[in-house]
Amino acid sequence: MSQKLNAALLGASGYTGADLMRLGVLHPHVQFKALTANTHAGKAVEDVFPHLGGVELPTLQRAEELDWAEFDVIFCGLPHATSQKIVSEIITKTDRPKIVDMSADFRLRDPAQYKNWYGNDHIDPKLQEIAAYGLTEHNRDAIREKRIIACPGCYPTAVLLALLPLAKANLINVDAIIVDAKSGVTGAGRGLKQNTLAAEAGESLSPYAVGAHRHTAELEQELGAVAGKEIKVNFTPHLIPMSRGELITAHLELSNGKTAADLRSALETAYSNEPFVRVLSEGKMPSTGMVRGSNSCVINVFEDRIPGRAIVIAALDNLVKGSAGQALQNFNVAFGFEETTGLSQQPMFP
Amino acid sequence: MSQKLNAALLGASGYTGADLMRLGVLHPHVQFKALTANTHAGKAVEDVFPHLGGVELPTLQRAEELDWAEFDVIFCGLPHATSQKIVSEIITKTDRPKIVDMSADFRLRDPAQYKNWYGNDHIDPKLQEIAAYGLTEHNRDAIREKRIIACPGCYPTAVLLALLPLAKANLINVDAIIVDAKSGVTGAGRGLKQNTLAAEAGESLSPYAVGAHRHTAELEQELGAVAGKEIKVNFTPHLIPMSRGELITAHLELSNGKTAADLRSALETAYSNEPFVRVLSEGKMPSTGMVRGSNSCVINVFEDRIPGRAIVIAALDNLVKGSAGQALQNFNVAFGFEETTGLSQQPMFP
Amino acid sequence: MSQKLNAALLGASGYTGADLMRLGVLHPHVQFKALTANTHAGKAVEDVFPHLGGVELPTLQRAEELDWAEFDVIFCGLPHATSQKIVSEIITKTDRPKIVDMSADFRLRDPAQYKNWYGNDHIDPKLQEIAAYGLTEHNRDAIREKRIIACPGCYPTAVLLALLPLAKANLINVDAIIVDAKSGVTGAGRGLKQNTLAAEAGESLSPYAVGAHRHTAELEQELGAVAGKEIKVNFTPHLIPMSRGELITAHLELSNGKTAADLRSALETAYSNEPFVRVLSEGKMPSTGMVRGSNSCVINVFEDRIPGRAIVIAALDNLVKGSAGQALQNFNVAFGFEETTGLSQQPMFP
Amino acid sequence: MSQKLNAALLGASGYTGADLMRLGVLHPHVQFKALTANTHAGKAVEDVFPHLGGVELPTLQRAEELDWAEFDVIFCGLPHATSQKIVSEIITKTDRPKIVDMSADFRLRDPAQYKNWYGNDHIDPKLQEIAAYGLTEHNRDAIREKRIIACPGCYPTAVLLALLPLAKANLINVDAIIVDAKSGVTGAGRGLKQNTLAAEAGESLSPYAVGAHRHTAELEQELGAVAGKEIKVNFTPHLIPMSRGELITAHLELSNGKTAADLRSALETAYSNEPFVRVLSEGKMPSTGMVRGSNSCVINVFEDRIPGRAIVIAALDNLVKGSAGQALQNFNVAFGFEETTGLSQQPMFP
Repeated sequence: MSQKLNAALLGASGYTGADLMRLGVLHPHVQFKALTANTHAGKAVEDVFPHLGGVELPTLQRAEELDWAEFDVIFCGLPHATSQKIVSEIITKTDRPKIVDMSADFRLRDPAQYKNWYGNDHIDPKLQEIAAYGLTEHNRDAIREKRIIACPGCYPTAVLLALLPLAKANLINVDAIIVDAKSGVTGAGRGLKQNTLAAEAGESLSPYAVGAHRHTAELEQELGAVAGKEIKVNFTPHLIPMSRGELITAHLELSNGKTAADLRSALETAYSNEPFVRVLSEGKMPSTGMVRGSNSCVINVFEDRIPGRAIVIAALDNLVKGSAGQALQNFNVAFGFEETTGLSQQPMFP
Repeated sequence: MSQKLNAALLGASGYTGADLMRLGVLHPHVQFKALTANTHAGKAVEDVFPHLGGVELPTLQRAEELDWAEFDVIFCGLPHATSQKIVSEIITKTDRPKIVDMSADFRLRDPAQYKNWYGNDHIDPKLQEIAAYGLTEHNRDAIREKRIIACPGCYPTAVLLALLPLAKANLINVDAIIVDAKSGVTGAGRGLKQNTLAAEAGESLSPYAVGAHRHTAELEQELGAVAGKEIKVNFTPHLIPMSRGELITAHLELSNGKTAADLRSALETAYSNEPFVRVLSEGKMPSTGMVRGSNSCVINVFEDRIPGRAIVIAALDNLVKGSAGQALQNFNVAFGFEETTGLSQQPMFP
Repeated sequence: MSQKLNAALLGASGYTGADLMRLGVLHPHVQFKALTANTHAGKAVEDVFPHLGGVELPTLQRAEELDWAEFDVIFCGLPHATSQKIVSEIITKTDRPKIVDMSADFRLRDPAQYKNWYGNDHIDPKLQEIAAYGLTEHNRDAIREKRIIACPGCYPTAVLLALLPLAKANLINVDAIIVDAKSGVTGAGRGLKQNTLAAEAGESLSPYAVGAHRHTAELEQELGAVAGKEIKVNFTPHLIPMSRGELITAHLELSNGKTAADLRSALETAYSNEPFVRVLSEGKMPSTGMVRGSNSCVINVFEDRIPGRAIVIAALDNLVKGSAGQALQNFNVAFGFEETTGLSQQPMFP
Repeated sequence: MSQKLNAALLGASGYTGADLMRLGVLHPHVQFKALTANTHAGKAVEDVFPHLGGVELPTLQRAEELDWAEFDVIFCGLPHATSQKIVSEIITKTDRPKIVDMSADFRLRDPAQYKNWYGNDHIDPKLQEIAAYGLTEHNRDAIREKRIIACPGCYPTAVLLALLPLAKANLINVDAIIVDAKSGVTGAGRGLKQNTLAAEAGESLSPYAVGAHRHTAELEQELGAVAGKEIKVNFTPHLIPMSRGELITAHLELSNGKTAADLRSALETAYSNEPFVRVLSEGKMPSTGMVRGSNSCVINVFEDRIPGRAIVIAALDNLVKGSAGQALQNFNVAFGFEETTGLSQQPMFP
């Protein structure tokens, strides 16, 4: 199939939107027909993202102006709560476009959990029935079949790629998962906040949302589903003075008699044929610099000095594999394209 | 032409080499058949550049092991002085490969100037006759014809793209060109130096090599050639606490009666059909963030408060348009490929 | 004199205010009796600046609550326009406090120039008669005598320290002064702006306000006063991905027959006994890392390859010598304390 | 006591040495009579640390040239193994100076452990009898009495300040301590290494020495001593793209029935009168920016979502409280000065 599909991108003025445009304009099957950014409607993309000044792209417009039936796919980079309103409307109005949503609105299957973590009642919980949790490597069938693809949060992508194969194989105690996470400032979005000013976030390091980060909900849902029970996860994120990239350090209790080598083996088996997930050879340190700008996730396993424990570390680019790249990967799966299409860019280092 | 040409990359363990691999592995007509890095011979590329761990590439080897006649093109990322020795040997031994050299060894046409700035006698000054100065946009005919393509330094690329059209049109006084330049730390290479340690180069800013930077020689040669006389250029570089990117601020004296608008007009005319050089609309600020990771150069013209003067500012990625990207662009020109082949990656922001 | 003077700090929630508190709490003659920050009134300082959590300081309050007659000195870190309103009120109500203003409101002697550059009419231009331009090293007599001390902008402090002695000695052509300036992001203040978000200002470099920066007015006023004529100055600032520090590179035309050595000599003479201004030995590069956190300014002179020209480079910490430190230095002068009192902190490197 | 004591600083060309000079030159009881740096002997301090150019300091010399009996105190900033040789010689030759050692050579009481972690046999294990582990807040008596003060590593300082009171009060399971640590690049020292080049350490984040960092030995020794048994600690450090500062995140298993509130209470009790350790109020996030350049350590306690667990986070400046500042604090204790003398500098933010 060599034709281009009609695509709309909602929320084109955020960082996730920018990276979807950066990658999407080179994708042979994506044709951006509409880009929305309500507060910037009428502007050229170049006016909100000067780095895209050299690319031909539609003028930014308001979402209300779109005729949803004209699109094959709608990439949604809107904030949660906003996203569900528009998706609900799209589903009501037309059968045509698939929706690849990068917000949190369709990630949690339990509306009570959604409300608990995000504060608002979900306006259309039934949509969950036609939504797939878009962790590509672990959910391809659903991604192919469902109308809505709910791309995981950036942190859950890294954590679940690292831990799902271990939980599935009963190698770790899922009741004692400790995830110490670190992210660059783009993870906080483009909104104006004092703590992400360069003068404040630069040359400093701090934890945030300790015990209260919303991505915890996805971790507990997905790992709990594998374990077949409700679990609580320690998720402790830190803001790092860099722009992109995130790294998660999972401190794990091994199941009885299991070893770090068993973990390595399970991960190698799970990802041996995966183009975007790479288990590093023993002793190699994952780093965000190894994956910057690419759709790759690197993982490694380390022994813990404390007997019966192990450490698993994973790194990815939060805007690519953690968001826009995974969205395109899901698009490829959903429409039957070669999964690596448009995602072959190598990491940029230094 | 869809076949892949046999390519060797000499000096694969430096930053320029890394970026040539990053871009080259996606180029439809480049097949890396050999990669050299003498002190790392025998290692996998992944061992010197972990971010390239996901890519199939030849093992690093010593340059002496290569049979030059097996290659269609040799990309040379070696330091000056080392480069001329190997290129001289290649030329002697075989007629086959074209050489795209990213070092300084074939940039200066006058061997006396070469010795003056680089300290050593050039071992084979006659090679200059078969070498083209590889500032692509201004020298395509020579690049097509000559055996050796001497890619300009990163700074000269930015400065000459910004100033050559102005000098050619007699719009500026070439005897009073002041170039205040700023570069990220990759410009200093991968060698171990105290002043490029993260602890020292981070959170600080300093000039270096004031009045003595070797790139001055290229500026004086190329701008002097246009002017038809010997000139001296003020070139004042500064080291900036960031990884990639460089920006030059040229403070210019206008020729009698000329205005900033005349400069803009000359630049717009020169580059209206160029895919990689973009004159920004009036008032827009060039930044290195606008071009990071891409082969683009952005330029703009500003009025000076001092009558009879103007300011021209240009930005590019020193490792791409300033080195590896321009090398591939020259490769495309030399072998008759579409000039943008393999260089369509968009800038990565943020 | 060992007693503490009663001090108020207006605008304590900005970066300049923070640094005045950092230094002021250790000053043996400063007792902060009141701190204002209208939008944060009622909060502890720790709530707006967690790094000051270990220090005993008054609760933030509204400026309207203060009885101006209770203070010996008022440090004013408010934005321009706001500053003049309060200062005018203070002067009307009481004879007691001296005012050390870090805003732009009393720097320009000509109200027309003020309006031209800042947009608003000055509400009380007569106050200019009792205001001194607080460039300490060059204006001690006025600083001692006047009621209001208008601390220079951060950029003008660096530029004027570097160029005033040269202009006074007729060593340079004041009609052709080109100042290429570079500053860290704290220079942009604590206001929420997209271009100073860590994700946007980090790993990038851009010019801003080219030919239009308000600090130009001070440069033209002070250098013009020395020259005895109206002049235009090229002032081209750039935003650098670091927090503090600024460096100015002045590209100068020498007066007939003068040399870089003459410039060096004039600067060495001017500053040989100054505790906070240091002319570096020949060839040493000024850097912002050399002065970070301290009240020092370092300067050096370099030959230009273009005959008849020279380059003078100066660096300082924009929040210290460029603002809060110079304010305390002026306070020391105004009240007859040893000028270095409370300002002996050494630069912090790395 | 107002006189100045004669001090020597060994290893003045490293970062720790630099910060000891930065702080020491303002200390009323420290007079640097000698500074050593073998490879730089004969140079001015300014030549290795330009930021100290404004300070009067002795010329750098070789350690062999010193007459140890001339000094009251010797600050030792040498690498391990080198340090023990010189200290052994000093002790042999003279009874006069106390030694404040910032290396690892006298931290481990068990020579077998020393050899295990550092590779070499300790040349004079008996010196351990006259050495105190210099974690000031927890060991003042020994620091006052012993001849050698072995300042803790930067990481152990943060970890032990956070955890010792908890271990002493039996509030946590010492067999299950997980310390996820993060440090800026100065922690890696001034040696030339590829991974601390600005181009490589900037804009990236990576773990290092997982399960193998030498500071683990101190943690196990000190926490084990409190617990009265041998323990293993998980210590997982990460290199962060910033210059100074470190933050440790301790993931802890509570003793039966204990809560996060118990931990907070124990810490508040332990440090209520300590000038340099501050337990933050509930919910406040520690950050390295809060303590940069100061001798402070900030700590806070957080609840874990997993029942029976808690998270304790501490931040300090690795070069100050983690090294040079704590050395001066120990000097103050050892010589009977007010403990805060020379250490009142406030954190520098931003």
